[in-house]
Amino acid sequence: MKYGFGVDIGGTTVKLGCFRQDGALLKQWEIPTRTELGGDVIFDDISGAVLGCAEGLGIARQDVLGLGVGIPGPVDDGGNVNCCVNLKLGVFNLRQTLESRTGLAVRAGNDANLAALGEYYDGGGRGSQSMLMVTIGTGVGGGFVWNGRVLNGFHGVAGELGHVTIDRNEPERCTCGKFGCAEQYASATGMVRLAKQRLAACDTPSALRQVPELTAKALFDCAGAGDALALEVLERVYDVLGQAIADSCCICDPELVVVGGGVSKAGQPLLDGIARHFAKYCFHAARSTRFALAKLGNNAGIYGGFRLISGREP
Amino acid sequence: MKYGFGVDIGGTTVKLGCFRQDGALLKQWEIPTRTELGGDVIFDDISGAVLGCAEGLGIARQDVLGLGVGIPGPVDDGGNVNCCVNLKLGVFNLRQTLESRTGLAVRAGNDANLAALGEYYDGGGRGSQSMLMVTIGTGVGGGFVWNGRVLNGFHGVAGELGHVTIDRNEPERCTCGKFGCAEQYASATGMVRLAKQRLAACDTPSALRQVPELTAKALFDCAGAGDALALEVLERVYDVLGQAIADSCCICDPELVVVGGGVSKAGQPLLDGIARHFAKYCFHAARSTRFALAKLGNNAGIYGGFRLISGREP
Repeated sequence: MKYGFGVDIGGTTVKLGCFRQDGALLKQWEIPTRTELGGDVIFDDISGAVLGCAEGLGIARQDVLGLGVGIPGPVDDGGNVNCCVNLKLGVFNLRQTLESRTGLAVRAGNDANLAALGEYYDGGGRGSQSMLMVTIGTGVGGGFVWNGRVLNGFHGVAGELGHVTIDRNEPERCTCGKFGCAEQYASATGMVRLAKQRLAACDTPSALRQVPELTAKALFDCAGAGDALALEVLERVYDVLGQAIADSCCICDPELVVVGGGVSKAGQPLLDGIARHFAKYCFHAARSTRFALAKLGNNAGIYGGFRLISGREP
Repeated sequence: MKYGFGVDIGGTTVKLGCFRQDGALLKQWEIPTRTELGGDVIFDDISGAVLGCAEGLGIARQDVLGLGVGIPGPVDDGGNVNCCVNLKLGVFNLRQTLESRTGLAVRAGNDANLAALGEYYDGGGRGSQSMLMVTIGTGVGGGFVWNGRVLNGFHGVAGELGHVTIDRNEPERCTCGKFGCAEQYASATGMVRLAKQRLAACDTPSALRQVPELTAKALFDCAGAGDALALEVLERVYDVLGQAIADSCCICDPELVVVGGGVSKAGQPLLDGIARHFAKYCFHAARSTRFALAKLGNNAGIYGGFRLISGREP
């Protein structure tokens, strides 16, 4: 039996998983992301964690297929990372960095793309031929998987549907520097921004005015309780997501769209809202594109990492 | 030596090419698209043309790899065509239809996707790893090629960047039934529509008011001669194309964008105009995406057909 590791590097923790070649998750754990001591420490920590786990489980070096690793930033097919702001890392090769430390085969990708790969094989996308994953959290990200392979893109930015332009007249800048990106309206932060704008522009009574902190969760809760203003704001959010996904489907035309990320805890109402607006913006022949919720939650990245190293080669 | 055929079915003619396995074009010819007698006649005509050519060139049946065929409509990976309005054809399997008539292996695709594949291997995209082709003619189409394979999409509509929504407030309908598609502003027809709208809305003198027929070519000619109004309309067109391509690149992130189709005869000014606006809308990490003109003209489809049958299998 062979084994593989999935590693998902986040801003505060690194999630790790040890898998059997047949896909069974044997062990899952986290270590802190120590960025304060400079970039190299993380990679020593990861290397130690992976090799230590293999030793602890009695897995011989030659039985390890390798590790697949995701990072929040653009990663190209060769493993080159072009700046990772959250982790205070510049331009470097993630694949080589971890290969030299672990002595294992390494494959690297963007965290959202890895999550997409995980959902494709083991989550909401299971059984589909091609899948677009949409991750709605602090930002809006995504990934496209086709015939078992995730598309990284030449510059490592494939699947970035949060940066499709929705409103070219938007006066505020997106964190990416552009104006009017989908993320500015449909991420957790973007939804709150829209809600605050709407509340400031009217005197309509709304439960949103009473919540101690206006968050995406509060917005969904108030909408669930029938608050008209919250429902109106969410309708706008669904409209933006419907368009961004429809535009994306004109390009990659997947069998299935899987919606994940923290905001997807809102569940079926979110999915229904998106699908309703998608129908308005999608190209007619793709009208039957199916929608599903992600299933792996925060584990999608480690599953995807494992599939990156154990899956079909490019 | 083995041989392959590329067949590009258009509204008025079917273009055919016979290729040697190494990619050399041995013979190229056209036959009329006889739709008036019902759908089946075209396929008999194509079958006769291909088999006749092989016989004429003394190519034995066992030395024919097969034929790759393109049609103006959505075609999925299995060769299913979901309605082809121009050719008065409904739902049928193009692959099986031609396999049963010719006894040869057949692979089928959308005509814009086949043109993309042709340019990737033998034209403006040669040497690139991934390429987005944008075809600007009567409509705006496109195709995405990755590691030598063109993406058809689950519903056969991948690469349809002409139907990315640019202006959700557009009051007129696109031929596809939606509102505000890129094609409504940036196809040859769309450009003329914009120019007419602009001319009707002002009294500004313009050479466009004197041309016997207002066409996309006239628009480029007047702009080339310095006509301010023509330049203004084209600036709008470039802006739309820049956004549609930037949105597409957020999803597929190609190394290279190749611009083809009848309108691409306008050459470098068109390419420069698009690239200028692309820079405004593209995600920062993809800013260095290169642009090039297509090279194969009307032959792109037959080259792509040949590459579909002779290239790497899915």
